[in-house]
Amino acid sequence: MRDLGLAITIDAVGNVVATRAGTDPNAAAVMIGSHIDTVRTGGRFDGNLGVLAGLEVIETLEQQGIATRHPISVGFFTNEEGARFQPDMLGSLVYVGGMGLEGALDVRAADDGARLGDELSRIGYAGPTPCPAAAAPHAFVELHIEQGPVLEDEGITIGAVTGVQGISWTEVTITGQSAHAGTTPMRLRHDAGYVAAAITAGVRAIANEMGGTQVATVGRCEFHPNLVNVIAATATMTVDLRNTDEARLQGAEAAFNAMCDRLAMEEGVTIERRALARFEPVEFDTTMIDLVETTALRLGHSTRRMPSGAGHDAQMLARVCPTSMIFVQSVNGLSHNIAEHTKPADITAGANVLLQVVLAKAM
Amino acid sequence: MRDLGLAITIDAVGNVVATRAGTDPNAAAVMIGSHIDTVRTGGRFDGNLGVLAGLEVIETLEQQGIATRHPISVGFFTNEEGARFQPDMLGSLVYVGGMGLEGALDVRAADDGARLGDELSRIGYAGPTPCPAAAAPHAFVELHIEQGPVLEDEGITIGAVTGVQGISWTEVTITGQSAHAGTTPMRLRHDAGYVAAAITAGVRAIANEMGGTQVATVGRCEFHPNLVNVIAATATMTVDLRNTDEARLQGAEAAFNAMCDRLAMEEGVTIERRALARFEPVEFDTTMIDLVETTALRLGHSTRRMPSGAGHDAQMLARVCPTSMIFVQSVNGLSHNIAEHTKPADITAGANVLLQVVLAKAM
Repeated sequence: MRDLGLAITIDAVGNVVATRAGTDPNAAAVMIGSHIDTVRTGGRFDGNLGVLAGLEVIETLEQQGIATRHPISVGFFTNEEGARFQPDMLGSLVYVGGMGLEGALDVRAADDGARLGDELSRIGYAGPTPCPAAAAPHAFVELHIEQGPVLEDEGITIGAVTGVQGISWTEVTITGQSAHAGTTPMRLRHDAGYVAAAITAGVRAIANEMGGTQVATVGRCEFHPNLVNVIAATATMTVDLRNTDEARLQGAEAAFNAMCDRLAMEEGVTIERRALARFEPVEFDTTMIDLVETTALRLGHSTRRMPSGAGHDAQMLARVCPTSMIFVQSVNGLSHNIAEHTKPADITAGANVLLQVVLAKAM
Repeated sequence: MRDLGLAITIDAVGNVVATRAGTDPNAAAVMIGSHIDTVRTGGRFDGNLGVLAGLEVIETLEQQGIATRHPISVGFFTNEEGARFQPDMLGSLVYVGGMGLEGALDVRAADDGARLGDELSRIGYAGPTPCPAAAAPHAFVELHIEQGPVLEDEGITIGAVTGVQGISWTEVTITGQSAHAGTTPMRLRHDAGYVAAAITAGVRAIANEMGGTQVATVGRCEFHPNLVNVIAATATMTVDLRNTDEARLQGAEAAFNAMCDRLAMEEGVTIERRALARFEPVEFDTTMIDLVETTALRLGHSTRRMPSGAGHDAQMLARVCPTSMIFVQSVNGLSHNIAEHTKPADITAGANVLLQVVLAKAM
């Protein structure tokens, strides 16, 4: 960003935005953005691609001596993954005014309880620029890897993303009673570990029965005291439910809640549920989806419309400006995995679609 | 032990034995013993009771000026619980020659991989006395809390323990593939966390279907990377199966193994199983069981014969000498729980039965 001579701001929640001036001093910026944080076992493409491609777009305009009426900015948003602080997409959510700054800075880390605001200060990213942003972008475009298998399976180069699945994250804490694994008859147990397992298997069954775009995942699970011969006193776990349809997502949540209530009664345990994140499905601006699709076709690429199974910063920006996303293939559909890969030709194709979409909005 | 003027030895695996001399220099000792280690959330009675009651027996004999033909010794054995090092009952197992000393010292901790021999040196309990013991005791008696609900439910004071359930401990490591929780369709998942949950729920079903004394517990379970939006790449868990009948225990193991093989195929994961401990059911010496029962009745206590659901050092000593155990009530059947409690009157009753049984064997 510095090498390109851009005007760089760091805001109060750590979002970094670098801007290339336009010719019209009153025009809002066309914004390109994504994130550079990652999950612990993540790859190199998730998030980074959209930020680096944005810088590539600006470098190309510089090299070609092309001025635009609107400024063009490239941003990366804090804590998109939600790996340590929940909710995920926190930086972009605060950026568009969807969550109060003070509440966001007071969020505590899932692992060690550290406060987000303190951690931003510690790493030097509690910036001086106010957040939420003073003005909405003219438009927002995010290039991202698909993180799923669909484009590769169908041999298609560019995905024109129509929207983002709704996401429901719940932390579940089960409190039973620790007791000796050898002497406690099965019928007298209040086994928090068993209930966590029954919930994990149960949400899989809910997703399988609902079919369609419904997915359900228990990615985190911890037993306490976590010893071979002690019935678990407590278990903490997360449940991740997603659907492109809000009514069906609510149906999955209702089935999950009913299952928890039934298991709590059957096993004689208490089950606390705490919402970590809840986002309704998002539909992107039709004009912007059309622009991605027609641009891809004009550049000679195969394309299809598709929803995103993952959450993205773009869904937050869609609250305040016309927004779209460009997807490129993930080899073997892998993401959140160190084997994550996208072929150079697909990177080039995606970056060129990004360039042309941005130019169309910025001229 | 020092206050009572006993001859104290610490052996190569950390077992501590304190001996009061008998009048016959050639007579083997009547041994009282248990353990003083505990699980992380354990109470104050499990193990400690049998050791402290043994010292109380010796103090009583001293105070009354009673000499015995056989020496009387009180021992506590290393790592009975197996909370950090497996197998459990390791100290008494090595003491009777059931496991080689070098192999035992090379055992690694489940939590941080520390070597048992190094840890014994670090805490000053790699003692000079050879292990296994040079000579078998004349008899072995262990007073212990029941750690279960049976005596309290039936209003009985003294349990004359007939033997110990067989124990089968397995560490299960499931290797799947980490992937994005939002974009990976249910049918394409290789979810190690789901399989761990299915095994946990499955062993509960096996125990319920078998009934009788069969119990099954998953007390330890860990996901990796353990993040809300990442399908678990690996999961590590333990399965604890117990039955008083060896053939039925083998049946439970066979059902568990078949379930693992089926789940591995269905989900496309690999499942490794490693035996952490495997002990066949033990039956105590009939004469010793009779002695506990008749002594309890002679002292005016209600009594019943019962198997032990938990493993105990006594089951190891039973390999080399006539052995028995005395059970007293656990309030609410609780053990391996900080609420573990036994009423003072029951402690007194158990200690007096211990005293009389030891005297009967030592005179």
